[in-house]
Amino acid sequence: MRLTVNVPMRWGDMDAYGHINNVEVLRILEEARIHAFGPPAGTGLPGLEVELPIFSELPDGTQALVVEHRVKYLVPLNYRNVPARIEVWVSSVKGASITVAYAIFDPVTGLKCAIAETSIAFFHGGTGTVLRISAEKKAQLAPFLGEPNFR
Amino acid sequence: MRLTVNVPMRWGDMDAYGHINNVEVLRILEEARIHAFGPPAGTGLPGLEVELPIFSELPDGTQALVVEHRVKYLVPLNYRNVPARIEVWVSSVKGASITVAYAIFDPVTGLKCAIAETSIAFFHGGTGTVLRISAEKKAQLAPFLGEPNFR
Amino acid sequence: MRLTVNVPMRWGDMDAYGHINNVEVLRILEEARIHAFGPPAGTGLPGLEVELPIFSELPDGTQALVVEHRVKYLVPLNYRNVPARIEVWVSSVKGASITVAYAIFDPVTGLKCAIAETSIAFFHGGTGTVLRISAEKKAQLAPFLGEPNFR
Amino acid sequence: MRLTVNVPMRWGDMDAYGHINNVEVLRILEEARIHAFGPPAGTGLPGLEVELPIFSELPDGTQALVVEHRVKYLVPLNYRNVPARIEVWVSSVKGASITVAYAIFDPVTGLKCAIAETSIAFFHGGTGTVLRISAEKKAQLAPFLGEPNFR
Repeated sequence: MRLTVNVPMRWGDMDAYGHINNVEVLRILEEARIHAFGPPAGTGLPGLEVELPIFSELPDGTQALVVEHRVKYLVPLNYRNVPARIEVWVSSVKGASITVAYAIFDPVTGLKCAIAETSIAFFHGGTGTVLRISAEKKAQLAPFLGEPNFR
Repeated sequence: MRLTVNVPMRWGDMDAYGHINNVEVLRILEEARIHAFGPPAGTGLPGLEVELPIFSELPDGTQALVVEHRVKYLVPLNYRNVPARIEVWVSSVKGASITVAYAIFDPVTGLKCAIAETSIAFFHGGTGTVLRISAEKKAQLAPFLGEPNFR
Repeated sequence: MRLTVNVPMRWGDMDAYGHINNVEVLRILEEARIHAFGPPAGTGLPGLEVELPIFSELPDGTQALVVEHRVKYLVPLNYRNVPARIEVWVSSVKGASITVAYAIFDPVTGLKCAIAETSIAFFHGGTGTVLRISAEKKAQLAPFLGEPNFR
Repeated sequence: MRLTVNVPMRWGDMDAYGHINNVEVLRILEEARIHAFGPPAGTGLPGLEVELPIFSELPDGTQALVVEHRVKYLVPLNYRNVPARIEVWVSSVKGASITVAYAIFDPVTGLKCAIAETSIAFFHGGTGTVLRISAEKKAQLAPFLGEPNFR
């Protein structure tokens, strides 16, 4: 099972080559994670509740930190005033980290433009201690477990 | 008459103070202009047609360049996973430039967070010559003419 | 008396028109302020001390917030792998806000590309109360008082 | 042999967690590549010549495109008004792509904050054809060949 989220591109995401800049693709994926799992607790103000509040229900003082990114660009992603379509799933849940997998599609042609994975761990902001993923969170994520994009 | 556009904020628009960074407010306004007037011709690929295609129907090789910005921050804009609501109108149309006016509102509280104006002129990319605003464009913009935000 | 700071542009500051994007000009000015007045207290970690530590010596829990920006773009700023040269001075000191003025120059041609002003006020992060500018700060800024860029 | 480049961080690179945002780390690496190999030909205007002009001497109409990124964050990178120190080398040269490897260090503590690799291929902007890496470029890169960061 995959979540499909639509993330608007911004005109300013384009670089001098006239495509969405490769770094901004990762910004768009950051937003896709937040569409899927909610805004990290303790940042911003409340908006819509999401179905799978993995980030928005973190205990007070916890930070969701990216520990690894991997992204493969297949064809240039072009700016359109139509949101990019992004499929999000989970490719691995370990003791203390989860790996989010994504595929980004051009919203008009349907072409797959990039695939990526992001590993995230949860830390106490103060002590820097890593939090273990709870059994409850693992159960919430289970239906979205799928194939890794790499290897 | 004012256009109302909804521009999603991004989690990454926040800075170390935990609010939407003042510079990113201008990025959000750039996107508001494009929601209202269409993506500048010659950049990106086609998406949705907009009602008031001031930018998207520019002649080939023309650039819509910002010549002045003015923005007043009233209260901090906070990130939410709900788009910011932005009212867009035109506060002045001169021979060779138009001034777009905006007000940004928190989408939950309805609080007005910032007001701004952007003056834009149209240039031939090659020669750098300024284009005069056509009578047709002036007529299109006429219903959206309103009060300036400054002075 | 004006401070001259050199702020590196980034390749990614360019947009699809191939110039430094107008919004990124404001990001570069943010960095110019910090070169001149130090990183805002309570953010980041220590680096070099600056001569005029207006921001870096703010009392604990205080935020330096932009209340107004005004910027006039004279000629497009082009990316070079040489820092932009920026003159920084103070165009006004009021009871509870200061206005920083700037002029940005192409580092190779010496052409003035933009002029700008930013008004900043200091707030207690918690209470939102505005802080008055101390006599000591006013004395530090006095030698850098100069002509406003607007009006 | 490794190139060492110093890339200034920007205050605005911090996110709501108060560290340099993980996406901005990739923006800083983009700048590190350009410090090392020169600004891509056909973008921006001339500045300083670099020792190893792999990007700046690309044939007309060629684009250097990122085809893959991989980055591992070891400890949070903190903003300082001192440039991040980045070691850059080449971990692989294939027929039609090169892989740049990097390690980013805190400029004060010397702590290694992240390691990364970026694969780049060269395309004709018009036709989309991939360019083969010339024998001359391979010879230029040979002294900077080193260990991969991953596997």
